[in-house]
Amino acid sequence: MTGRTGVKTKKLINDGAAAVDEMLAGVLAAHPNHLRAIDGSPRSIVAKHGPRAGKVGLVIGGGSGHEPSFLGFVGKGLADAAAVGNVFASPPPDPIIECAKAVNNGAGVLFAYGNYAGDVMNFDMAAEMLTMDDIEVRTVLTTDDVASAPIDQRDRRRGVAGNVFVFKAAGAACDLMYSLDEVERVARWANDRTYTMGVALSPCSLPQTLKPNFQLGDDEMEIGMGIHGEPGVARGPLKPADDVTTELLDRILGEMKPKRGDRVAVLINSLGSTPLMELYIIMRKVKMTLDALGVEIHLSLVGNYCTSLEMAGASITLMHLDDELQRLIDHPCDCAMFRSGEAL
Amino acid sequence: MTGRTGVKTKKLINDGAAAVDEMLAGVLAAHPNHLRAIDGSPRSIVAKHGPRAGKVGLVIGGGSGHEPSFLGFVGKGLADAAAVGNVFASPPPDPIIECAKAVNNGAGVLFAYGNYAGDVMNFDMAAEMLTMDDIEVRTVLTTDDVASAPIDQRDRRRGVAGNVFVFKAAGAACDLMYSLDEVERVARWANDRTYTMGVALSPCSLPQTLKPNFQLGDDEMEIGMGIHGEPGVARGPLKPADDVTTELLDRILGEMKPKRGDRVAVLINSLGSTPLMELYIIMRKVKMTLDALGVEIHLSLVGNYCTSLEMAGASITLMHLDDELQRLIDHPCDCAMFRSGEAL
Repeated sequence: MTGRTGVKTKKLINDGAAAVDEMLAGVLAAHPNHLRAIDGSPRSIVAKHGPRAGKVGLVIGGGSGHEPSFLGFVGKGLADAAAVGNVFASPPPDPIIECAKAVNNGAGVLFAYGNYAGDVMNFDMAAEMLTMDDIEVRTVLTTDDVASAPIDQRDRRRGVAGNVFVFKAAGAACDLMYSLDEVERVARWANDRTYTMGVALSPCSLPQTLKPNFQLGDDEMEIGMGIHGEPGVARGPLKPADDVTTELLDRILGEMKPKRGDRVAVLINSLGSTPLMELYIIMRKVKMTLDALGVEIHLSLVGNYCTSLEMAGASITLMHLDDELQRLIDHPCDCAMFRSGEAL
Repeated sequence: MTGRTGVKTKKLINDGAAAVDEMLAGVLAAHPNHLRAIDGSPRSIVAKHGPRAGKVGLVIGGGSGHEPSFLGFVGKGLADAAAVGNVFASPPPDPIIECAKAVNNGAGVLFAYGNYAGDVMNFDMAAEMLTMDDIEVRTVLTTDDVASAPIDQRDRRRGVAGNVFVFKAAGAACDLMYSLDEVERVARWANDRTYTMGVALSPCSLPQTLKPNFQLGDDEMEIGMGIHGEPGVARGPLKPADDVTTELLDRILGEMKPKRGDRVAVLINSLGSTPLMELYIIMRKVKMTLDALGVEIHLSLVGNYCTSLEMAGASITLMHLDDELQRLIDHPCDCAMFRSGEAL
């Protein structure tokens, strides 16, 4: 049984309750040229080279434990700030408000984050408070997790690794000085065109408990499990990577319905402990499948982008590109934990 | 017991024996703008934008399972090619020879790789064959693993995550059109100034066997374990991250002997499944320790750089900078799995 009850997970931490703040201290120590915390609001992380006059501010955020999401995507050309919650828990309104104030330059602020009840409540409270301060806030929830609700209830879906593409498109639009209306439109469009399916092989544990957040048989996998261990859509014996990839892709492609000649951006994401070797084996099958359909891969990201601490498993995200989304995805960004888009 | 006998590790693979080749297919599918395989020599991966007239060619390589090492560091400003072995096994001479021929532009070729008997044998055989083809080859072995032999037998030490800094310095020197003599000098100097100490918390397993490569008690760690599970220098109960960090740093600093005002580059590396949260908690303590000594952190890398499949654990590498090494470490590079050095 993976994630045996009673067996504590080993972690290189000091005190579970201090883990997030100590992590943040390390992040700021490692990336002083990219990131700063707001004075008096240490859970508000702002880009040193992001916000500027007339630019819409992009604020992202959510629980910790998904690193490099979300603070790793704060930087020039991407998000201007991230509000940092406890492990797998939404940030409260205060750090969100401080982020918005720090990145507001008169053009308004977009909140973009995964669709989870706690995040919605806290970001909405923050937005309400900011409106009283005459800061215009719009909100786009990411809902890319195909497994989390049927397609006709897309607004009930959770946001997972597809966040990366949605934030990237929105951040590029901000950097290109789009208006708040336009940034909101782009973010919504990017989310509408982004689909993720994941598979979990073994659990993670929170720093405070060191106990596995779920259990799986020694030969089992669970398709569609969420990044906080939310139940998936099918549990069964672990299959070969190509079969798993096909199972995940079939659900994505069944909704996306790409035509020959269409272009996609691909993200093969590790949930934490699944190594690059396995991600690239998945990538191989994704490429074969898309080649057979005549769908062009414009860009591929492979690695740890939206993790669940040390959970084993992976997710596949496809973003169905059009010319505008392709241009925004290609726009350069320079974050502490993610750089892309420079020409060779 | 972590790594229980008889319990198979779950991996997203198809066939253990095909894992490396399928990974390579995925790498080429994901990064067609950065990498190509040599026709007829699929385990020889070459940078699309690296080799050029008059430039010394830098060939790296080693066993698979350490991704993004080594092929992830092939690209403009870093290595020109990587020879890819089976999991935890040296590449044979042939793919090394093909790499060297592909990146040789008349200025000679530097081989840089970790000091392991199998790699030394195969790279040396390759060098001998190339000499017969009038290609001048020099070799620099990386020996940054402090735990693997006493300081007075530094040439017996293994190469681990410090590879990244040594390759980075040598690759920058190549890109700056240093002569083969100068590239070799820089690589040797970079290696002399680079020190790594690691700690393992749980094992990994090879795709062919799916069996753990060592066992540790449920509350144990092993200081100094190698990236193929080579025995370390001390096994004992898992300690808080700050204590572990101090233990690792003490050995590094005891050899490096930095003075106040000295500068270092820092790499906090995951051995595979240890997440960023824990790496940044280690980074925090590294920063506190160096601050107290008046040692300046010029650059920090935190993440998966030299892994051991899904092993849990981390390593700390310090490179003791001087003006030349700092300039080389800051030089831009653009690889499939590593970009650095652009000004903001």
